[in-house]
Amino acid sequence: MTASTANLQNKVHIDLGERSYDIQIGSHLIGSSATFEGLPDGGIALVVSNEVVAPLYLASLLAALRPRHAQVHSVVLPDGESHKEWSTLQTIFDGLLKHGCDRKTVLYALGGGVVGDMTGFAAACYMRGVSFVQVPTTLLAQVDSSVGGKTGINHPLGKNMVGAFHQPLRVVCDLSALNTLPERELSAGLAEVIKYGPIADMAFMTWLEDHMDDLMQRDPDALAVAVKRSCEIKAQVVASDERESGLRAILNFGHTFGHAIEAGMGYGSWLHGEAVGCGMVLAARLSQRLGLVDAQFVDRLVALIQRAKLPTVAPVIDASDNASRYVELMRHDKKAEAGAIRFVLIDGPGRAMLRPVDPALAIEVIESGCRIA
Amino acid sequence: MTASTANLQNKVHIDLGERSYDIQIGSHLIGSSATFEGLPDGGIALVVSNEVVAPLYLASLLAALRPRHAQVHSVVLPDGESHKEWSTLQTIFDGLLKHGCDRKTVLYALGGGVVGDMTGFAAACYMRGVSFVQVPTTLLAQVDSSVGGKTGINHPLGKNMVGAFHQPLRVVCDLSALNTLPERELSAGLAEVIKYGPIADMAFMTWLEDHMDDLMQRDPDALAVAVKRSCEIKAQVVASDERESGLRAILNFGHTFGHAIEAGMGYGSWLHGEAVGCGMVLAARLSQRLGLVDAQFVDRLVALIQRAKLPTVAPVIDASDNASRYVELMRHDKKAEAGAIRFVLIDGPGRAMLRPVDPALAIEVIESGCRIA
Repeated sequence: MTASTANLQNKVHIDLGERSYDIQIGSHLIGSSATFEGLPDGGIALVVSNEVVAPLYLASLLAALRPRHAQVHSVVLPDGESHKEWSTLQTIFDGLLKHGCDRKTVLYALGGGVVGDMTGFAAACYMRGVSFVQVPTTLLAQVDSSVGGKTGINHPLGKNMVGAFHQPLRVVCDLSALNTLPERELSAGLAEVIKYGPIADMAFMTWLEDHMDDLMQRDPDALAVAVKRSCEIKAQVVASDERESGLRAILNFGHTFGHAIEAGMGYGSWLHGEAVGCGMVLAARLSQRLGLVDAQFVDRLVALIQRAKLPTVAPVIDASDNASRYVELMRHDKKAEAGAIRFVLIDGPGRAMLRPVDPALAIEVIESGCRIA
Repeated sequence: MTASTANLQNKVHIDLGERSYDIQIGSHLIGSSATFEGLPDGGIALVVSNEVVAPLYLASLLAALRPRHAQVHSVVLPDGESHKEWSTLQTIFDGLLKHGCDRKTVLYALGGGVVGDMTGFAAACYMRGVSFVQVPTTLLAQVDSSVGGKTGINHPLGKNMVGAFHQPLRVVCDLSALNTLPERELSAGLAEVIKYGPIADMAFMTWLEDHMDDLMQRDPDALAVAVKRSCEIKAQVVASDERESGLRAILNFGHTFGHAIEAGMGYGSWLHGEAVGCGMVLAARLSQRLGLVDAQFVDRLVALIQRAKLPTVAPVIDASDNASRYVELMRHDKKAEAGAIRFVLIDGPGRAMLRPVDPALAIEVIESGCRIA
């Protein structure tokens, strides 16, 4: 694998029949009308962003869209995972109706995963379905959440419990936007980048070990490679299992523990990527406990996660009965079936599988505090 | 067309590829396990009903499902169109999560159109999609809303503005349930039955003229024919245009005016079917105004609607500027495009079309009070 130039105009194609689309990866894409060529034009565009991203990129995106659409409007949401719920979604519907948006309206999601998930879900539901374009401005959204059509909101009892599969028309990954990303969010995004190594591509894991310092310093060449390779792997998995009936679940490596951490700590306390980083450590240890990988592999993964400045020790989410609370929250995971919790495990480095695991083993891993032996 | 026996076990098939399903029409279906043969079993069943229907049929349906499912639970919603909104929907999600429902869970909608639309939308969104079965207990739901996969909730600015296309696994039309229907709801259901005549089948309209007294007296043979023929026509239209990109819109005859009446009067004041009955009169007059049908056809339709004890005079929804308020509300119709209101018109008896109409003509029809000339 070789690094490309920073302002490469790369495309990754997602093959989903009539719902196929491209991921565009490059620099300075948001402000350029050319970025949006080939998309439906003429009607109303509604850009959804949040109060952190809007001051940075909204004017630029609106300017790029104005020559293409009859009307261009925007809705600015409050920032953060804690707002990923119905009342915030409702403000998007209010905006759509206020501006008289019809079925030909195109929504644009300008922001991170929360903005993308909510805008996509609003597009899925408004008048039973309108089109949308993802313009992810965080690393996490560029390499994971904006790709593949999963949209939704949280429920107090579980993350993303209410949602839809609704594919975007295009994903525009502007690498320049990563320059304004807070370091904590850069790290959170790297959790989802790291994920692709153990589940699918150990050569990529080795590349990440070689380039983690470059990535932490936002070297544009390194970021371009990391985003592209992540999208390629995700595209392949999603194309073979759009609605997560099987294989696609492997993309949830670290997420069963991670969702319990996010819900247990209260949404917004830990970033999704932080919870996934820590969750990957727990899931790797569980894989080791089941004899699927050895300690050396786990240590390698933990070291890489630490270099991305991500937490690797499971937090206490309930002082009175921590393990039971983890298990309770994990039972609400969407992968659970007939009451059994199913985990994505590493079935040998570079290969993942989904299987039910005795909660007692998960408790053992949680209680060992996922300290490196 | 000949009447069949009341306890016929008729099926109407909806051909939608892998989303195909049957509508079962017969007597005493709800309490029989045999009704549900062939549907997924084993997992959790969650029956959603409302406080009016539950005392009548919930125990019976639960008894029929218990031998088939590992767990059978229920959620009872408040009754009425005014509750067709997010906070009521949320109680379904609460029930699903409280009972640990997973992706294999099957929802059953036991009730009228509101219960069916909300249960279907909850099924579409819970964990990004689970299965559901329609068990409509009102005439309106049996002949219209339970068939075709349109689901959703209302927004203060428009009806069914938030929703999804999500097909049920089966529709079970138990004609026995119509015996407990209040007369006002029987009439409301007949509005959607009458609709199928002018848009698709004038022989059916003639049959309705011959049998309207039987239908109003709930003659089981007459109801069986009316439900079956209505479902056949709807099945044909839906199969050719599942997501309403064209033809399917003709099923909305009377609905553009009707939705404005419902919203203008406040949801729950007029029943949907009452608004559609009156809306059909307005749409027929608009068709006449455009020279598409003659006065004789309009008079025939108005007489039939009156015999079903439905309103035929447009209500005043805004004392200060009634016509403008109608137009404002109709601009929010989902069929509107680029600001133009599109109406389903009768393009000669038995044939419908969708086209934009100058709002001035619609105002003229509204202001003439849809009195029979």
